[in-house]
This record gives sequence, structure tokens and C-alpha cells, in this order.
Amino acid sequence: MTPQAAYTELVTRWRKSTLFDSVGSVLGWDQRTYMPPGGSAHRSEQLALLSGIGHAMETEPRIGELLANVEHSVLVQDPTSEAAVNAREIRHVYDRAVKLPRDLVEELTRVTSQAYDVWVAARQDDDFASFAPWLDKIVKLTRQKADAYGWQGCRYDALLDGFEPGATTAEVQALFGPLQKDLAALVAKITHSGKRPHQKVLHSEYPVDAQVEFCKEVAAAIGFDFNAGRLDVTTHPFCSSFGPGDTRLTTRFNPKNFSDAFFGTLHEAGHGMYGQGLDTNHYGAPMGSAVGLGIHESQSRLYENFVGRSQAFWKRMMPRARKYFPRALGRVGLDDLYFAVNDSKPSFIRVESDEATYNLHIILRFEIEQALVNDGLKTADVPEAWNERFRKLLGLKVPDAARGCLQDVHWSGGGIGYFPTYTLGNLYAAQFFNTADQELGGLEELIAHGDFQALKKWLSQKIYRQGQRYRSGKLCENVTGKPLSHRFLMDHLNTKFNALYELAS
Amino acid sequence: MTPQAAYTELVTRWRKSTLFDSVGSVLGWDQRTYMPPGGSAHRSEQLALLSGIGHAMETEPRIGELLANVEHSVLVQDPTSEAAVNAREIRHVYDRAVKLPRDLVEELTRVTSQAYDVWVAARQDDDFASFAPWLDKIVKLTRQKADAYGWQGCRYDALLDGFEPGATTAEVQALFGPLQKDLAALVAKITHSGKRPHQKVLHSEYPVDAQVEFCKEVAAAIGFDFNAGRLDVTTHPFCSSFGPGDTRLTTRFNPKNFSDAFFGTLHEAGHGMYGQGLDTNHYGAPMGSAVGLGIHESQSRLYENFVGRSQAFWKRMMPRARKYFPRALGRVGLDDLYFAVNDSKPSFIRVESDEATYNLHIILRFEIEQALVNDGLKTADVPEAWNERFRKLLGLKVPDAARGCLQDVHWSGGGIGYFPTYTLGNLYAAQFFNTADQELGGLEELIAHGDFQALKKWLSQKIYRQGQRYRSGKLCENVTGKPLSHRFLMDHLNTKFNALYELAS
Repeated sequence: MTPQAAYTELVTRWRKSTLFDSVGSVLGWDQRTYMPPGGSAHRSEQLALLSGIGHAMETEPRIGELLANVEHSVLVQDPTSEAAVNAREIRHVYDRAVKLPRDLVEELTRVTSQAYDVWVAARQDDDFASFAPWLDKIVKLTRQKADAYGWQGCRYDALLDGFEPGATTAEVQALFGPLQKDLAALVAKITHSGKRPHQKVLHSEYPVDAQVEFCKEVAAAIGFDFNAGRLDVTTHPFCSSFGPGDTRLTTRFNPKNFSDAFFGTLHEAGHGMYGQGLDTNHYGAPMGSAVGLGIHESQSRLYENFVGRSQAFWKRMMPRARKYFPRALGRVGLDDLYFAVNDSKPSFIRVESDEATYNLHIILRFEIEQALVNDGLKTADVPEAWNERFRKLLGLKVPDAARGCLQDVHWSGGGIGYFPTYTLGNLYAAQFFNTADQELGGLEELIAHGDFQALKKWLSQKIYRQGQRYRSGKLCENVTGKPLSHRFLMDHLNTKFNALYELAS
Repeated sequence: MTPQAAYTELVTRWRKSTLFDSVGSVLGWDQRTYMPPGGSAHRSEQLALLSGIGHAMETEPRIGELLANVEHSVLVQDPTSEAAVNAREIRHVYDRAVKLPRDLVEELTRVTSQAYDVWVAARQDDDFASFAPWLDKIVKLTRQKADAYGWQGCRYDALLDGFEPGATTAEVQALFGPLQKDLAALVAKITHSGKRPHQKVLHSEYPVDAQVEFCKEVAAAIGFDFNAGRLDVTTHPFCSSFGPGDTRLTTRFNPKNFSDAFFGTLHEAGHGMYGQGLDTNHYGAPMGSAVGLGIHESQSRLYENFVGRSQAFWKRMMPRARKYFPRALGRVGLDDLYFAVNDSKPSFIRVESDEATYNLHIILRFEIEQALVNDGLKTADVPEAWNERFRKLLGLKVPDAARGCLQDVHWSGGGIGYFPTYTLGNLYAAQFFNTADQELGGLEELIAHGDFQALKKWLSQKIYRQGQRYRSGKLCENVTGKPLSHRFLMDHLNTKFNALYELAS
């Protein structure tokens, strides 16, 4: 078989496997948006069947044979050629998949599907003890998983690699260390400033129908294509790209507060535009797929924070917001609204935290996860470790586990190693936004005039259409000319909050 | 291998295949309810992949081996035992599936998926000529399909058998012949009576939000379980049971007319209650599946027409309807509404036709289909054959193909042989309702008092929980003590319309 023929068959098979996986995405979306409560058990069975068949497709020995053929050919001589990229990233997923023993995969699926319900109840009842044995099982299985994958630096590397291909714990530590120090200084200054925005601006009458319309209008304005997507309601918002032409955003509405749904929609729309912007000619192959979760998160954060929480954005959107919410915002000034959506103060819940404190929540989780996976922290000791660390990082005494180590869904689903990508996303977003600002000659001006097309076009060219041609770190260097650094995020935060809170810079 | 072990493996495999098929149902539902326009091509690819894998599961040679083992054992001695029933009906589906050459399956899938769009455009533009070559391909492939299945009486039998297992064209003709004669007489009498209900009753202001609430209230009242189901909006209403605990109803709302959505919801709820009422212990096996399309349709027609268009029903529901639609129905009397929802007159569109004329539309399609499949009627001659037959049966001159032979979606999807099950459903519904009325001691009284539980319980015991233990005809005899006859439907129609139109009986 010629390498070219092997490559064609490889991509065809991989595409089919991706197409098959996308069926599960439709079922997952339905499960979290419209499925009636009674459908839960049947849906689990459908998803388990799909995951079994999908895993078998992904680990077919034939894929290994085809890969070997392609890898030993001239097709991969140029490491950034289409064939080399596809072979490299298929190899990455294939090797990880075949390394996992089938019984471990099934045990993880079984345990995490049961653990989810336990976690929901435990969080509701603030009862860590009932979740602890499940977390224990999950951590043990996750350690086994990491060891099956294999690792060099530390066990956590093997997990991180599943969410951020190629990234190491040491690299992330090197970024998060100085970030933590600088954030701590900024947060302390904000706290000591004694300034606070008017709270009542965001907590008023925001009729849900008007919120839906406003969210859709703004998502469309920044570039999300509703001909190839939707916005629906869910409990835990997410974005799911089924494939070319079909990307689903979800959010949740609070009739007393418009910012949850609004910034949530901008966030998911950022993810969604990445999904919509991938090269459909390469659908199903790495060249037509997103790089990693860090870059994906950078796209959501860029629109949520760098665009959506900017003064320029509200200069443009305030008249529209007043039109949709005349009672709540009719008499509110631009500066007051801008300040209100940038209210910064230490708080307990990650998903409700602001742009500055958010990353401290992530750093805490990154540390706890390493302790669990690398250092043998006992699950029973997680609350104490969490609370102690929380006081050091955010200066607050955690009142209960529901507002502490029980708040996130991730661990119940086995997603250990995922959290760091959130802060990596913030760092990438800051660095990309900085470069786009320079190359497009002033994004503030464009945004204030409602021109969102230039930014979308820039992202499309620099990021969306690149697929997985480069790994995240290399992509960042190519796009911005510099390796990933915490300085761009800190510059952004310092500039914004120094002005808002009148801090000495 | 013992027959018992073979039987267990057979049912396990069949259940998995059914579970897998149910994944396609979720995607089909989403496609027709929420999918954005841009998702169409990707969805087709997902569905094609699923149908290929599903067909392979269903035709695994191992199933044939297991079936042979079970069929030659004592397990099937009693033909109504669980094992005998499951083996019989799995054999029916398996034999049909393996007889179809793979290339014919793929060609049919390809042609019908393209033909749908052609049909939509052709109907919109009233352009039969553009659809004719596609219909031609579909008829040719369908004839090939029938010949691959094999047949004894006539080729159409092989198609009918896919929708109504075991039924023959001759049997259906024997029922439809006298039915047509009696219907023609009734329709003529109604036409000559010169009576018509007040048209403006149904054509008024019916706010969609209120319609949604009313439809849900009534569907729940008759017994549809919304904990295990939903009601959503679509263009061509349908009901889809994904599996235990998850049955989706769909309808469409017209703000100027409440009867479309209302009776549509009752219809789909009737299908849905059958789906919800199947024995979940037998999920995935014939014992936990619906008998055939005729019986399925009987459940929808029973609630739509025999319950929903009865005087007793409106005696109960009129106050509720007035509450939801005070402007439209505040001053309308019960008799006027009852007459309005039973307005009978020849018209062009099947799905808008009334209880009496509806079956003439079906008889026409049954005849045209036989001519196409058995007698070589040319597709180019379909409009002429349709229009000529329409004038004879319904006394109207068809003005265009859009209101004639282009109106239904079925042929574009290859669903030739499906139509007769609609009228079979009406016949079964009449006969079941008649028996239930006798055994429950007066359904009118129960319905007028809002007691819908007795009927649901009766249907559950007599029909839902029977699964495929008996084929349709035998089930009818068991439940009603008589073979299927057109007399019950005619008695029902004559009684109702004689009274409404003051006809000499």
C-alpha cells in the first residue's frame, strides 16, 4: 500500500470516528436541554453503547498500521504539512486510547456516571462525607489511567496532556507562580481601595424574554452564525459543536440579573465561533479540529472579558441594553454599568467570580489536583486543604463544602487535569487580544463603532483555520511573536482595575 | 449451546440493536424540531452512518444462527410464549433485512434523501414534472425491494408486510371495498343536507401560548405522562418514542385556528401513550414493541376522533377551552363547537380532511400505489390517474398537483405501502372503542366526567402490554371477539353525522 493510499484511508477512518462521536454530542446536548426527567436511564444506556462503539472505532488496529505506514514516508517530512499534522495528532489520540485497558474505561464510565448523582445530592446537602468515597474511587482510577498512559515528569502530566496536548505540569507551574503573586497584589489593592460599584444596577428587573433577544442580538453582532447554530436554556451552560453547520450554545437566565446569561452567552458564543470557524474541508481530521482546551477557552474569554467587559463595548451596547431593559437601565449611566460588570472582590464560587480573582480559584484547584494525583493527599483531607489554601489565596474563610471543594462538577466526571486550561485560556486570550489590537490598529475604536468583523476575521485566519497545525504554545508564538506569558493578562487587569478602582499604579 | 442460552443471547443482541436504532430517533427528532438550517448536511451524514451500522447489527449472521437454535427447540412450542413471539418477530425483521442487497439499501437511502428536497420544492412550485423522475427512480427501487423480499399474491404484499406484518393486499381490499361504498353514501347525504357549522368558531383569535398550555393540559388529562415526554413544535407533526421514559410529541400552532394543533396533539398523544405503555421489561424485544402501524394508528385515532371529537369530551372540556380562549369561545355554545370540530365536506388535502372523507383519500392512495407497484402505471401518468380517481371518490376536480398527487411526503421517502395503515387504524380504533364502551359500561359518561383513566387502563391491558404477542388481526379478534370489520367505523360515523346533519338514517 502506498503511503498516500494509507493516508487517505487513515483520514477517512478518523473522519468516520469523529462523525460517530458527534452523534453522542447531539444526545448529550438534548440530555442537558430538553430531555424529560424520565428519559435519564435510557439516555445513559444509549451513551454507554455509543462510547463503546466509538472507542472500538478509535482503537482499531488498522489505524495503527496505517499510521505506521504514513509516519515512515515522505508525507511527514515537513512537520507542518497537512499529512504530518494529521498523523501526529491522530497518533496522540490513538496511542492514548489503545493504552487504556478496556476494563478501566468501563469502570471509569460506570463510576463517574453514578458519582454525578452523588455529587449533586452532596453539594445540595453540603455533605462532603457522602461524596468522599466516590472521589476516592475516581482519584484511584485516574491515577491508574495516568499510569497506563505513562509519564515522565510527574503523573499529573499524563492527565494534562489529555486536555492540553503536550503541556507539562512544570510549564504550567512556571506560568501560574508569577501570575499568582501579581494577582494577589492586585486583589489586595482593590480590596483596600474600599470602592464598590452600585450593586443594584445588575440586580433589578430583567424580563427573560428581553434577555433572550438581547443575548441573541449581541451573539449575532459579534459574529456567531445563527443559521448554523442555536441558543437554548440549560442548568450548567456549555457549547457543543456537532459538526459543520451546527453549533449549539446554552445559557441560563435569572430574571433579576442580566449579567449571568449575558456574559455566559458571550462566553459560549466565543467557543461557538471557534467551532463554526474550523475548516470544514478538514472536518473530522486534526487539521479541522480545535487545538486544545486552553486555546478553546481563550476564544470564549476573549469575547466574554476582553470584548464584553470593555468600556468600548458598552459605549456601543448601552443604547441597545436600555431599549431591552428600560426599567432596569433607563436611568443608569454608562460608567455605572461598566463598573458594575467589572465588580471585583474575593468570593467563594468560581463561576461567579470576577476577571481578577477567577484565576486564584483555578490555581487553588490546580494545586489540590496535583496533591491528589502526585502526592497522595487523602480525599478525606481535601476540605481542610482546600479551605486552608483558599484563605491564603483569597483571604476568606470557607463556610461550608458546598461553597468550597464540592462546588464544581469536574471531579465527579473524572475531569482531573481540566481546570488549568481555564487560566491558560485567560492568558492566551490576553496575549491574542494584545496582538490583534496592535495589528488591527486599535480594537477599542472598532468595538465602540460596532465593527466586530475585523476581529473575527483576524481570529479566523490566525486561529480557527489553523486547526491543529501547531500545538497551543507554538501557535501562540506564531500569532503573537512571543511565548505564552502572564504579563499580558496582568497588564490588562492592572490597566482596567487601576482606572476603575483609582489605584496607584 | 442450549436453546435457553441462545435465546438469551438473541434477545440481548436484538435489544442492543433496538437501543442503537433509538439513537437515530433522537437525531431525527432534533432534525425536525430544533436543528438550525445549516446543520442539514452534517445530520444526513450522521444518520447515514448510523443506518449503516444499525443495518449491520440487525443482519449479523450470528442472529440467524441463534434464531435457528431457538426455533428448533421446545422454547417455541407454545406460539404465544414470550420466546416464541420474540423469535417469530425477530425472524420477520431479520429475514427481510438480510434479503435486501446492501447496494439497494444504500441506493434507496441516497435517492430518497435527495428526493425529499426535490419534493419540497416541487410541491411549493406546483411542478410535478420536476418530481416525476425521482418518483420514477423510487418506484423502480421499491419494486426491486419488494422482489428481493419475495411475495406470493402480488408485489404490493411485500411492501405492506413491512408496515403491517402479515397483512395482504387482498385482505385490505376486502375491507376497503365495502367501506368505500358506505362512505360514499354517507358523504353524499352530508353534502346534500346543505347544513354547515359556523365557520368562524374555529377561525378566530387563538393565542399560541394559550394553545400550548391547553394542549398540554388535555394531553396530560387523557393520560400522557409529561415526566416521560415532551411536546414541541415542528412542521410535519409526529411522535417519537426513544425508549423507556422518553416519548416526544410534536405539533404545529396556527394562531387563527386552534383545532390543527389541538387534535394533532391528541393524535400524537395517543401514539405516545402506546409508546409509554409498552412493557419496559421487554424493551428492545418484540414483546415490548408495538404490533404494527395499523394498531399504532388506532391508538392515535381513538384519542383524536373517538374521544376528542365526541360530544361528551366537549361537555367536559368546554369550560377549560373558554378559560384559555375567552375572546374566541366566550360566547360560543357547546353544540356549535361540537359541530365545528366535526365539519364534514370533500376537500383536497388529506391531513385537513374530516373523519368521514379522510378514508376516501387513503383508498385513492392505496389504489394508485397498487397501480404503480403491481400494474406498471407510469409515474408521468400519476396526476391524471389521481385526478380522475379523486373526482369519482370525492366529487371534486383537483386544481393542481400541489393539492393533488404532490401533497404527501411519503413517496419521496420511499414509504410506499404505508398509507393503508391509516385507514386500518381508523377501523381498529372504531372496533376497540366499541368494545371498550361495552366492557367499561359507557365511555361517554366517563369522558363527560373527565375520567380518562379507565380507558387508558383498558388499552394498557388489552393493547399496550401485549407487545407483539399477536399480530394485528389476531389481537383485534382477541380484544373485540370479532375479526376486523368496517361496520364499527361506519356505525360510529353514521350515528354521529346523522345526528349532526339531521340525515334520514
